[in-house]
Amino acid sequence: MTALKEFLAEVICEIDVTLNDRLPQANVEPTRLHEAIRWSVFAGGKRIRPAILIAVGRTFGAAENSLLSTAAAFEMMHTYSLIHDDLPAMDDGDLRRGKATCHRQFGEATAILAGDVLQTLAFKTIADDENLSAQIRLKLISILANASGTPDGMVAGQQLDLDAEGKPLSIDALEQIHRQKTGALITAAAEAGAAIGGAIDEEIAAVVEFAAKLGLLFQITDDLLDVTQSSETLGKTAGKDVLAEKATYPGHYGVEKTRALAEAIRKEANQALVAIQKDTSRLREFSDMIADRST
Amino acid sequence: MTALKEFLAEVICEIDVTLNDRLPQANVEPTRLHEAIRWSVFAGGKRIRPAILIAVGRTFGAAENSLLSTAAAFEMMHTYSLIHDDLPAMDDGDLRRGKATCHRQFGEATAILAGDVLQTLAFKTIADDENLSAQIRLKLISILANASGTPDGMVAGQQLDLDAEGKPLSIDALEQIHRQKTGALITAAAEAGAAIGGAIDEEIAAVVEFAAKLGLLFQITDDLLDVTQSSETLGKTAGKDVLAEKATYPGHYGVEKTRALAEAIRKEANQALVAIQKDTSRLREFSDMIADRST
Repeated sequence: MTALKEFLAEVICEIDVTLNDRLPQANVEPTRLHEAIRWSVFAGGKRIRPAILIAVGRTFGAAENSLLSTAAAFEMMHTYSLIHDDLPAMDDGDLRRGKATCHRQFGEATAILAGDVLQTLAFKTIADDENLSAQIRLKLISILANASGTPDGMVAGQQLDLDAEGKPLSIDALEQIHRQKTGALITAAAEAGAAIGGAIDEEIAAVVEFAAKLGLLFQITDDLLDVTQSSETLGKTAGKDVLAEKATYPGHYGVEKTRALAEAIRKEANQALVAIQKDTSRLREFSDMIADRST
Repeated sequence: MTALKEFLAEVICEIDVTLNDRLPQANVEPTRLHEAIRWSVFAGGKRIRPAILIAVGRTFGAAENSLLSTAAAFEMMHTYSLIHDDLPAMDDGDLRRGKATCHRQFGEATAILAGDVLQTLAFKTIADDENLSAQIRLKLISILANASGTPDGMVAGQQLDLDAEGKPLSIDALEQIHRQKTGALITAAAEAGAAIGGAIDEEIAAVVEFAAKLGLLFQITDDLLDVTQSSETLGKTAGKDVLAEKATYPGHYGVEKTRALAEAIRKEANQALVAIQKDTSRLREFSDMIADRST
């Protein structure tokens, strides 16, 4: 097991314990809503955003218990976006992480509500975290809201993605969609970890640049996997970007040139870390893992 | 014009100016998302929640500029819930406040995203409000999250409502649904106004009891209007509760007994205000207005 895999195994366990604690139990009314929340939150997600938040926070010396609630909040926000993105009116996904999507399992109405309330719980989890000062909690809420909202955040990116369906798209437009739809929350998770760790402005800027490259790398490899892997391996419907005529990197550049681009972005991500006067080896391992991922 | 109507006209103007300032302009990309947000937010809503927040805040001597952002945030949260509640998978509404519902005008995917991001903007609006201390902002975020979330808030109430469709329902179960689905956000608006105004615990408790009665009164009169008024007068589809076999007060008690119940609740609401050592005449006007409303 690599050092990063050990780190991830440890961190995923911590995050899951925190999520389990912060989310309503499945036997509390309305049970159907709480079952739906837990179905999607505990569906075997890779916990990339909270893991990055914790890795960055530790890099700057943050106490572990000051990181966990915010890390869990980022995962709640991510999961809400997946539930809504999978809805019939959006991507109409049947499978997510190898399981039925939330609306396939619980019906569309409950899936809409489960996504809605996961967003609410994300903000509540940060607001109520007594391990952090009031000022930092507000800053984290603002970071999370900007990254997941509009005009620069995730939901705006999803709208741009919708607007672009079936249209020819410039590579710049494609990158903006990815930067907002996938990148913003990853970048914000890194920024949140640095803010909790008390990083200075220059270090935060370096972390944000690193994470922005990481987000781009994540999207490029996601596009690659969609065209090169089976649904069974991915745990979600493969080839659906092509079916939906969505703009993708392999669609623009072909598979080989996209692989070379991914390698270049990996190097740029690691280069950004040079500005940080701490041990950033754990963060470099993240870009390597994402560049080399097969699921 | 009654004193309350003058107050409402003034307050609605202030709230609309604040909402216009806090929401992205319609010409900012993604324009379709921002047009959809503004379509629903500026659809002629009655602004009951922000108006109650401001009325309670003024009762306790809060400065006007300390109330407006939070008041706008409550309206954003309410509007998000209406947009999602109107979706085909939920109530499938065609009309809202006399206009096409958000999904009828902009499509389902954009309507889902518009609702999603209105929730995000609600929390962001409070988090960024520099007219309030950090501690009170966090308290307001927590109040708003609890009231709109689960297990005691609005989304949980919507799930209970879904679960109950087509089933016989006790009057207690019906009241719980209303308390959460409609009442929680109204009660929280009053609590928020009292908290910003620095009310003591006993006064907050009295305001919360008053507002809980007001919320119940609002729902009972809503049910009455659904069976006694035309779609044209209401600005939304009339009779749809009956069509959907939803449990309602008139369905349980009949119209006349429901009217008597509304009158009793109005009196209880006003009685709760006796515990407050301030001039509460404005608040009493609210319960009178809701009891007597015809739209």
